Amino acid sequence: MKKRVVLALGGNALQKKGEATAEAQKKVANQVGEAVAELADKYEIIIAHGNGPQVGNILIHEEVAGTAEAPAMPLETAVAMSQGQIGYWLTQAINNAFMKRGRRAKVATVVSQVVVDKDDPAFKNPTKPIGQFYAEKEAKALARKNGWSVKEDAGRGWRRVVASPKPVDIVEKKAIQELVNDGVIVIAAGGGGIPVYRTKVLKRLKGVDAVIDKDFAAEKLAELVDADVFVSVTAVPNVYINYGTPDQSEIGRITAKEMDGLKKFGYFKAGSMLPKVEAAVAFAKKGGVGLITDIENLKEALAGKAGTIIHK
Amino acid sequence: MKKRVVLALGGNALQKKGEATAEAQKKVANQVGEAVAELADKYEIIIAHGNGPQVGNILIHEEVAGTAEAPAMPLETAVAMSQGQIGYWLTQAINNAFMKRGRRAKVATVVSQVVVDKDDPAFKNPTKPIGQFYAEKEAKALARKNGWSVKEDAGRGWRRVVASPKPVDIVEKKAIQELVNDGVIVIAAGGGGIPVYRTKVLKRLKGVDAVIDKDFAAEKLAELVDADVFVSVTAVPNVYINYGTPDQSEIGRITAKEMDGLKKFGYFKAGSMLPKVEAAVAFAKKGGVGLITDIENLKEALAGKAGTIIHK
Repeated sequence: MKKRVVLALGGNALQKKGEATAEAQKKVANQVGEAVAELADKYEIIIAHGNGPQVGNILIHEEVAGTAEAPAMPLETAVAMSQGQIGYWLTQAINNAFMKRGRRAKVATVVSQVVVDKDDPAFKNPTKPIGQFYAEKEAKALARKNGWSVKEDAGRGWRRVVASPKPVDIVEKKAIQELVNDGVIVIAAGGGGIPVYRTKVLKRLKGVDAVIDKDFAAEKLAELVDADVFVSVTAVPNVYINYGTPDQSEIGRITAKEMDGLKKFGYFKAGSMLPKVEAAVAFAKKGGVGLITDIENLKEALAGKAGTIIHK
Repeated sequence: MKKRVVLALGGNALQKKGEATAEAQKKVANQVGEAVAELADKYEIIIAHGNGPQVGNILIHEEVAGTAEAPAMPLETAVAMSQGQIGYWLTQAINNAFMKRGRRAKVATVVSQVVVDKDDPAFKNPTKPIGQFYAEKEAKALARKNGWSVKEDAGRGWRRVVASPKPVDIVEKKAIQELVNDGVIVIAAGGGGIPVYRTKVLKRLKGVDAVIDKDFAAEKLAELVDADVFVSVTAVPNVYINYGTPDQSEIGRITAKEMDGLKKFGYFKAGSMLPKVEAAVAFAKKGGVGLITDIENLKEALAGKAGTIIHK
């Protein structure tokens, strides 16, 4: 039996800084394709991915060029657009990496709605900046007009901020499960998923402008497909204590409980390593293996020889 | 055994003229959701759809607001974006129509690459106008810079034109087949599919800026999933001879051969009814039933009581 592995690909695994053309991003996707083709003999692979830079650019294009005839799409729909975009690049890259090895890949991207709770406290305190920068006056006018929350962003200007609620469920889970069980490499929950909630009484799905953390969504996906291993694929081979200081030391094999202890000491930065650690720890507590490593060390980490390996 | 039906939804089934906001398009998608939920007890449904107005707006936003930092995405990637966008709206609408009936839908959108032949004669004679209008001088400068073909478009200005090659294969066919066999309502080959070709020697997939006719792609999808019925869902209940004249007469049940005869007389307009007729006739010649009707008459047409019904 092959082990079932969910990869949560960070933005850096999809785009090099400042190289945002489709052609440049396809080249980066090819590295992911190679890694997946290398692993596919021993592992069943399911991929979730971030979309920060991509959905950011889509939103900017929509906001700048939106008109009455060609209206700007809202964030929730822009996430769906980014799933099509990045999913296409990844499936094509995986297809070609298999073809290079004389084989045909079975791979598909499933457009994914991820359910959040409308009562999630995150909706009371939106923190996630998205889209373009505005002058204060313009930002506040847009906030009044569109019901946005806006905030000053680190001296660079004003931006819209949205909530980052926790993922509760994946609407397309049955289709994803069936594909995985049929041996298809599935790309799902891209960008943390299209954020939707169920209306109170009628339980209808409704999109909401929010950003779901891609590591939390990927961990939810790992649960739903009964994965053995959850990997947050990031820019560094390991999680570190005192990262970037002379006291830096890497974390190898560790228990979820020990990792929780380190978290309490404030070793992991919010918006950076913290969500990856929280997702991997959550998965380990449910009995799986939570890995954090980079794409170069992925194979070794899955063999237990590299990366930060979190177990129960 | 339920009959297996592929619906090819025209642009008008997804967007009312001049109502292009996400909210307005979701409302139109809800009508599709209702129709699908009504049919799902008796039929297995697979949906392909057009994307003309949607990908048009995406391209305009990308072209107008693209910068070095946030580059415009090319047409092939824009098609992928439109698949995410429209696929999301349709899956959500189908989910909600089932929920209204107290049931959970199994429905998923698969991002779909459709293979074309790089030697397709269409590439020598690009005819399909896309994106925004330009002044002649600007259009010709862009043509030189980007390797575009440009043409004057009916007195309204100059536009880029791309090829409309025939679909040869769907890269994700196995995943789509497995979902359909597992009873999932699948949305695939959106916008005719992301146009890709296989390189000559290495057989690698490569995206190409082109527009694949959505009826031809949907007919290919119908073949690949062994559908019993192919339906081109359009704005009118039937195909007509002498449409819009006092001699107008509707076509009901007819053979593929008879339909071919009418086609030779020039009764069906290219870029309008002709591709629908050609796709339905092609499907009928392979032994299936080819239907052409509107969404209001869909149920009756599937029961053999409405629409233009083409058989061998």
